[in-house]
Amino acid sequence: MEKKVAVLAVNPVNGAGLFQYLEAFFENGIPYKTFAVAETTQIKTNSGISLQTDDVVANLRGNEDAYDALVFACGDAMPKFSENAGKPEYQDLLAVIKTFGDKGKLLIGHCVGGLLFDITGIAAGKRLALHPFVKGAVKGAIGTDAPFVIDRNFYTAQTETTLHLLLQELLKVLK
Amino acid sequence: MEKKVAVLAVNPVNGAGLFQYLEAFFENGIPYKTFAVAETTQIKTNSGISLQTDDVVANLRGNEDAYDALVFACGDAMPKFSENAGKPEYQDLLAVIKTFGDKGKLLIGHCVGGLLFDITGIAAGKRLALHPFVKGAVKGAIGTDAPFVIDRNFYTAQTETTLHLLLQELLKVLK
Repeated sequence: MEKKVAVLAVNPVNGAGLFQYLEAFFENGIPYKTFAVAETTQIKTNSGISLQTDDVVANLRGNEDAYDALVFACGDAMPKFSENAGKPEYQDLLAVIKTFGDKGKLLIGHCVGGLLFDITGIAAGKRLALHPFVKGAVKGAIGTDAPFVIDRNFYTAQTETTLHLLLQELLKVLK
Repeated sequence: MEKKVAVLAVNPVNGAGLFQYLEAFFENGIPYKTFAVAETTQIKTNSGISLQTDDVVANLRGNEDAYDALVFACGDAMPKFSENAGKPEYQDLLAVIKTFGDKGKLLIGHCVGGLLFDITGIAAGKRLALHPFVKGAVKGAIGTDAPFVIDRNFYTAQTETTLHLLLQELLKVLK
């Protein structure tokens, strides 16, 4: 049976990354629900287009059992992560990632996604693909220069430009 | 000087295609404006996400001189093109494409985009990349099986999955 995916979108989000996941899931009949890492469901892409997610991350927290996999769709919100980390939506983001990790569900992400998986402590000893700028910040996990990496339940791509390579493999386990 | 791009988005639009253009333009400082091929600026992606474009195609018609290039972002609206072709937004779409072509501006598109360029008569004798399902419908242009094709002012990709290959070349002429 296909797996159900919760998709996190930061604000602003890289639309090319977000929609590579969503259109691939749609075309392959994989059920998904989108959650804004924001106070409301109205967010923007890096490129300035307003879009509406299904829900917000606060409502995913505590309801992780409804999903088999978590996607982190990165975006230009992340360079300011350290100064925003105390905000409720970012606290919810980290809590949700940790819960998915603790329960051994699939963790999927590109760009800075791997760093968040590392920060929450769920990826200790796992190999990850992530943006070269943040590779050095990884502590417990193993940051790599690979275009994409699959290590047990962790599916990571370096950036949105290599995401299509990861998606080919990811779809096999989600279907 | 960088070129200014008008981006057409059908309803529903493939978000993976649309946002590969938009994020690439954004990251490279190429100015663009989005136009829905619809009565309003509220459209959806194939994957069901609501988004808002800057304007509608009716307001691009007659204002083509403000732009150097036209992008056609394809989507699940197109399989029903023949039954909707008489609607004002589709008449505007075809008129706008023809005007850009007649003025020798850049015509850019993936999937069914090449067929629309052919239908309007602006691509006679030009080689195009387009979705295999519609290749046989091309009349005056030359449909190909290539992942992407550049033939004078025509920049076409077979589908959104080969669009990144076209974009590498396209950005060189837009910057």
